[in-house]
Amino acid sequence: MEILILVTGGTFDKEYNELTGELFFKDTHVREMLSLGRNLVPTVIQTLMMKDSLHMTDEDRQLIAEHCKKVKQDHIIITHGTDTMVETAVYLSKQVSEKTIVLTGAMIPYKFGSSDGLFNLGSAMALVQTLKEGIYIAMNGRYFHPANVRKNKEDGVFEELV
Amino acid sequence: MEILILVTGGTFDKEYNELTGELFFKDTHVREMLSLGRNLVPTVIQTLMMKDSLHMTDEDRQLIAEHCKKVKQDHIIITHGTDTMVETAVYLSKQVSEKTIVLTGAMIPYKFGSSDGLFNLGSAMALVQTLKEGIYIAMNGRYFHPANVRKNKEDGVFEELV
Amino acid sequence: MEILILVTGGTFDKEYNELTGELFFKDTHVREMLSLGRNLVPTVIQTLMMKDSLHMTDEDRQLIAEHCKKVKQDHIIITHGTDTMVETAVYLSKQVSEKTIVLTGAMIPYKFGSSDGLFNLGSAMALVQTLKEGIYIAMNGRYFHPANVRKNKEDGVFEELV
Amino acid sequence: MEILILVTGGTFDKEYNELTGELFFKDTHVREMLSLGRNLVPTVIQTLMMKDSLHMTDEDRQLIAEHCKKVKQDHIIITHGTDTMVETAVYLSKQVSEKTIVLTGAMIPYKFGSSDGLFNLGSAMALVQTLKEGIYIAMNGRYFHPANVRKNKEDGVFEELV
Repeated sequence: MEILILVTGGTFDKEYNELTGELFFKDTHVREMLSLGRNLVPTVIQTLMMKDSLHMTDEDRQLIAEHCKKVKQDHIIITHGTDTMVETAVYLSKQVSEKTIVLTGAMIPYKFGSSDGLFNLGSAMALVQTLKEGIYIAMNGRYFHPANVRKNKEDGVFEELV
Repeated sequence: MEILILVTGGTFDKEYNELTGELFFKDTHVREMLSLGRNLVPTVIQTLMMKDSLHMTDEDRQLIAEHCKKVKQDHIIITHGTDTMVETAVYLSKQVSEKTIVLTGAMIPYKFGSSDGLFNLGSAMALVQTLKEGIYIAMNGRYFHPANVRKNKEDGVFEELV
Repeated sequence: MEILILVTGGTFDKEYNELTGELFFKDTHVREMLSLGRNLVPTVIQTLMMKDSLHMTDEDRQLIAEHCKKVKQDHIIITHGTDTMVETAVYLSKQVSEKTIVLTGAMIPYKFGSSDGLFNLGSAMALVQTLKEGIYIAMNGRYFHPANVRKNKEDGVFEELV
Repeated sequence: MEILILVTGGTFDKEYNELTGELFFKDTHVREMLSLGRNLVPTVIQTLMMKDSLHMTDEDRQLIAEHCKKVKQDHIIITHGTDTMVETAVYLSKQVSEKTIVLTGAMIPYKFGSSDGLFNLGSAMALVQTLKEGIYIAMNGRYFHPANVRKNKEDGVFEELV
């Protein structure tokens, strides 16, 4: 089983620009994180875009959906900003079938020491190998179905609707 | 579903004693790691022992097996040193049934910055929720059955026998 | 010799707000940093303000100057944003005499793992004990006189004018 | 002013061998630490030996002393294990004159996240530029003369004799 990791941006990959004092995207840290986790599952990493998920449009979502459909891998992890992760998961669930797709992200950038990113990536890597076909969100040690999850923006956590 | 995390020691929880320059066990870091990972799966943490797994005896393994059988939780993560993790998994697979038990650990102590521990814990947390009854080892982003895994001590990785 | 550390904000103490994705000030990390450095020099920490130095006004600088003059300590470290650190140092050099004052800061927040803050604080702590009366800037392993330093904003480093 | 950093080993540079579970020396981290601290003082790094200071002999100390005498730099930082740092400082103070030499080290390895090494290196870098000729120890935010310091091994700190 070969895993595809599609990078789309999000807090996960944000860095601190020491010249401007702002957060920005440079490269993804997914390779470094897999190496830290001593991951030995065959994995391909592709960066599709580097976007704050608040700026993600339906054109972006369509691009992600088409990419998921056309690639040879049936097991896909998508790294994604948390703010619209649910929207993208719902979008994909209407377009992509016969694949196991797990969206994950982080509340704190990987580079900032206290990130949840590595835990979430470990979780997503396990889920993409064990869950049956479908679209899932992996956050807070849990996994969710797109139709039954929301991001509670006050607490910064994902929770089931019912 | 409530998860029990049984702490038995291992590299995972080793710390540096700055007075003696030696590695030692103080308390487990599992709670801190779950907090970092923003885990929201209901979880109980119990420290059963704090042992380097090279020093783990069959009495210790029996204690772990009995504890797994008697607790109310059916989904158990065991943190364990990597050197004899396979032996303990095999031991448990002969004694405990009707529970999903995932053993995990780390090659580098959690406190040492470059640890694989958080990735492995995220992975184990996902596996214990998705795998059916049985005993498993979660390392290197993968999961293994006790009868078909060994630690390759030259490379420091877990691999299938066949 | 008792050292006073006056906290005024700056990159040094910025944190990541995981709910808004923005950088903000909460509390100073100076105490934690001194503890990490196992500092045993008697030290008092006072937070005077928590400002991005781009927003620092002459009223703020006057407040800092007056505070430096009125406190009993003759050896003072000021943590300060780098963007206007030179302006504040020049301001202080016109107002405060008979004290050794060292301004320092960081290019990367202390909490972000790859910060220069701990190195700079170690440097400032040594300089405030060894330099004679005057106002100094401690950055990049060096110390500068206010009249002969500028922040090179393209490279993010401090350099002498001549 | 060009600074020479003489590396002799010590806790500072210890790493965790994930295959054996033991601490060992690989390469010095001084270059990486100076880079993290954005040091811009012209600095040359030389590794003279990689020893736990408990294993350091008078032959080793003689080698260090001769090296300090023959190099062109007059400002030298020596990274050294803390256990016999005082002995080496006393040894050097009898052999080397007309140079400013600052010995420093760490209680926790640099690679272990919670190290005092970066603070101490920042401190040593400042002291070597500001103290007059002589041999000094820089630890705990302070500096000491070799004849008036001991390592308190119970508390893990350096303190004056009188």
